[in-house]
Amino acid sequence: MPPASRPEDGHLDLVLSRIVAVPPELVWKAWTDPAILPKWFAPRPWTTAACEIDLRPGGVFRAVMKSPEGEEFGREGPGGCILEVVEHERLVFTDALGPGFRPAETPFFTVVLTLEAVEGGTRYTARVLHRNEADRQKHEAMGFTAGWSQCLDQLVEVVTAED
Amino acid sequence: MPPASRPEDGHLDLVLSRIVAVPPELVWKAWTDPAILPKWFAPRPWTTAACEIDLRPGGVFRAVMKSPEGEEFGREGPGGCILEVVEHERLVFTDALGPGFRPAETPFFTVVLTLEAVEGGTRYTARVLHRNEADRQKHEAMGFTAGWSQCLDQLVEVVTAED
Repeated sequence: MPPASRPEDGHLDLVLSRIVAVPPELVWKAWTDPAILPKWFAPRPWTTAACEIDLRPGGVFRAVMKSPEGEEFGREGPGGCILEVVEHERLVFTDALGPGFRPAETPFFTVVLTLEAVEGGTRYTARVLHRNEADRQKHEAMGFTAGWSQCLDQLVEVVTAED
Repeated sequence: MPPASRPEDGHLDLVLSRIVAVPPELVWKAWTDPAILPKWFAPRPWTTAACEIDLRPGGVFRAVMKSPEGEEFGREGPGGCILEVVEHERLVFTDALGPGFRPAETPFFTVVLTLEAVEGGTRYTARVLHRNEADRQKHEAMGFTAGWSQCLDQLVEVVTAED
């Protein structure tokens, strides 16, 4: 398994790591099933208006977020690119490439999601890689920690209700 | 196998496709063995001063090119990232990501190399994907077609001598 990044670049990452009380298989399904992802992916009252996932390296990953005022983000353009798929364990995707690995116009991050079965559920770790300090700070100021944590709560709520 | 790109983006690509009189296994070795790649990778009188290849998705791909005047390109920075490895058939790497899939500061291209065994040798196809028309034109003006064709001649010469 490749490292998430070179150790010396760790200061460019943002990380959310928590244990959640659902098994890795359900967390995986919530992230990879385009019928389920829209139910939890955007921090409410935002919503996910559309979702497209082609679950293989080079496949598209797109989630269109919609503000409470109805403005959409991510509808235009080719969408992001899936890089690595290890079922129930590891999902990597980026907006620095589009589907088919074509370089993107406005690269911002790569997401490395790892799931580990632990006593009581899943060790959930989302590591977000940026190209530089400015992008990392921008993402932090956008509310990364609170936003991703809220969405993880929503994910748990959704998969518990579905189960 | 993922498509090289969406069909509607084909005008953003540069392609070199030729049949060469060596088998796919030797072409593959020339591209993936860091002891052999420097012997052919730069169009002479340029040379390749250093090479680093970690042959797996997320691994580094770096080739430091050196001008006849001694100026080096690609020594600094993290290097590029390997995206897909299908032995003897398909190699994909990009400079839009660094090793570990971290977004790069200055993305320019993704290379999709495909090798097909044919009568008399190998159908060699190098497809280079750009993010926009300006980058494609810039790469074309840098001499893509003549440069990549010359390097392919050098590759054939080197692997024929090694064999």
